[in-house]
Amino acid sequence: MLNFLELPQRPQKPRNIGITHVIDRGIGIRKAQDLLETCGHLIDFLKLGWGTGYVTKNLAEKIKLYQEFGLEVYFGGTLFEVSVLHNKFDEFRKMLQSYDITHVEVSTGTLELTLEQKEQYIRELARDFVVLSEVGSKDAEKVMAPYVWIKMIQADLEAGAWKVITEGRESGTAGICRQDGEIRTGLIDEIITQIDPNQMIFEAPNKAQQVWFIQKFGHAVNLGNITVDDVIPLETLRLGLRSDTMLFDRGTCKV
Amino acid sequence: MLNFLELPQRPQKPRNIGITHVIDRGIGIRKAQDLLETCGHLIDFLKLGWGTGYVTKNLAEKIKLYQEFGLEVYFGGTLFEVSVLHNKFDEFRKMLQSYDITHVEVSTGTLELTLEQKEQYIRELARDFVVLSEVGSKDAEKVMAPYVWIKMIQADLEAGAWKVITEGRESGTAGICRQDGEIRTGLIDEIITQIDPNQMIFEAPNKAQQVWFIQKFGHAVNLGNITVDDVIPLETLRLGLRSDTMLFDRGTCKV
Amino acid sequence: MLNFLELPQRPQKPRNIGITHVIDRGIGIRKAQDLLETCGHLIDFLKLGWGTGYVTKNLAEKIKLYQEFGLEVYFGGTLFEVSVLHNKFDEFRKMLQSYDITHVEVSTGTLELTLEQKEQYIRELARDFVVLSEVGSKDAEKVMAPYVWIKMIQADLEAGAWKVITEGRESGTAGICRQDGEIRTGLIDEIITQIDPNQMIFEAPNKAQQVWFIQKFGHAVNLGNITVDDVIPLETLRLGLRSDTMLFDRGTCKV
Repeated sequence: MLNFLELPQRPQKPRNIGITHVIDRGIGIRKAQDLLETCGHLIDFLKLGWGTGYVTKNLAEKIKLYQEFGLEVYFGGTLFEVSVLHNKFDEFRKMLQSYDITHVEVSTGTLELTLEQKEQYIRELARDFVVLSEVGSKDAEKVMAPYVWIKMIQADLEAGAWKVITEGRESGTAGICRQDGEIRTGLIDEIITQIDPNQMIFEAPNKAQQVWFIQKFGHAVNLGNITVDDVIPLETLRLGLRSDTMLFDRGTCKV
Repeated sequence: MLNFLELPQRPQKPRNIGITHVIDRGIGIRKAQDLLETCGHLIDFLKLGWGTGYVTKNLAEKIKLYQEFGLEVYFGGTLFEVSVLHNKFDEFRKMLQSYDITHVEVSTGTLELTLEQKEQYIRELARDFVVLSEVGSKDAEKVMAPYVWIKMIQADLEAGAWKVITEGRESGTAGICRQDGEIRTGLIDEIITQIDPNQMIFEAPNKAQQVWFIQKFGHAVNLGNITVDDVIPLETLRLGLRSDTMLFDRGTCKV
Repeated sequence: MLNFLELPQRPQKPRNIGITHVIDRGIGIRKAQDLLETCGHLIDFLKLGWGTGYVTKNLAEKIKLYQEFGLEVYFGGTLFEVSVLHNKFDEFRKMLQSYDITHVEVSTGTLELTLEQKEQYIRELARDFVVLSEVGSKDAEKVMAPYVWIKMIQADLEAGAWKVITEGRESGTAGICRQDGEIRTGLIDEIITQIDPNQMIFEAPNKAQQVWFIQKFGHAVNLGNITVDDVIPLETLRLGLRSDTMLFDRGTCKV
């Protein structure tokens, strides 16, 4: 591995900041091995996106591979929501334990739970799992006022969530993002008046979104829904190895 | 494989409905193995897109791999059209047989054949192969009236086509789709007044298109030009394991 | 490999025209093997895009794999620029030699060097390496007049660059392309009044751009920033095996 430049250092794993949270939408074993060998050290969380884990034939083998490498694997919040919707919450919880999964996501991206119902699930799951909660709707039409975001994030943290993920979807077009992918920067500005940004993981699948968060919060910002093909490109953005952040904090540079 | 939810069942292979038809644009052996191991059971047809098979160095090995797994492999209709254009139709047919390929696509996406010429090719090939015909132009500017679509689909079926594929292109921006990817819903509505939707495979490479067809015709609709990376995501849409179809047929759900 | 059609022949490697120049944004060993086995014979240059090589854990193994197959591997110009910016130019050059890398890209896509500074780097590196220079900014807002492009390309060639790459970015939205991906066709027309197109490699990551260049300069045009997944699709465009170029030079064809 190259090492001739002096670049910013991220903390070692397990990290509390500088988290890269990756979404797997159904890759196979060989691709997962490629991912781990090229950049597994850069990944903290590996989310089996929405319900994709449910229909992956060789799921057990893939989970084991990730776990052996030291990644935290968990199922996207949609599988939690579907399980609740179908009255299969207990089966869902047992399934997690059968795979030695230690993290769980509690979300209300599609299913409408009251805040009280959601906090009840977080409290219950927090006894046995590390809970990542998610705030924000997957419906791009549903725009919540900043004070609602703040109230929900605070309630989730108080109920026992380790960190709160701010919804952006796989596509970066809902929640903290507008339908055209632009970040709701005013919303972020309001949220951070009340919440430490290090307590959140910002879903930011697109390059322009990643650049914005890195310029806003620095190279160790927690970023989520990074595609498996974008882990290395994201790392180059964090480290100033790509045009978009190369001159960041240096001003325009003439040698 | 997970099995704790009660989900709709698709028929077993060989299927007449619930077909997922995948486009391979040049993947390698390891990626193909990944595909088969994670979701090969969900795939019915594997199309080597347009002329990509012609320039793939290890083509024979890939075809064999797919065939051993029980997938129907065939060449995109463009290779048929190029062969006709270059007066190599007999060589094309012999080549198919040399690879033990049992299916063939007859299309006029680019080459202008008269309806009589096309039906002649379908009749001739139907003696030795299962024929999938395709209706619609790859030229986004060429918009055909609904009655022309209906006439062409009926003629292809009468000439011996097993099913008719409605053109959408790899990109989902022609034929039954507008240039911006939106489905020509009025066109589909008119076609199905005359043609059983189960006799067609609808090319729908984009998520919004897939969601529309599933909501229109149900989870077992026949869908085509699914990318190799979207087989699992599509299955989650069919089964209500993704936000976009999770509440489908249930109305807004409050637990 | 199929061979029943009579198709245009590209020169054998090492090629001076008909170059396909590929960008690797961080793929693993298995994917690289897939690439080489399906279409390695179609690839001339393999660029480890921008600074991605710097953060790839198993970089040495990947470089060796490409080199053993006979591909020219080199680092994207951004790594050159970062090295200069951090005063690590000598370390950069030594690193290249330690990996037996014979090609180097000199660019000013982000770093502002004077023309004299740039030519000095080209001259210096041309003693030990084959130099590919790049002209054009990665900043989509920075639009240079055609005469500036011509002056810069000529200066790079005179300083010792083997070929000049015209910037398009990984996304095809800067340099010779507009922000919406459309090619600045008037710019290209002016450049080729003074520069032989065979002395350039045109970055053209998107299909519409590739089609335009093939229709403008023929099947053996030099094209760059081709994604690893688009090598086979590009070859089908060069050979008339895809709708977009199938009738090229034949007029509308009625059989």
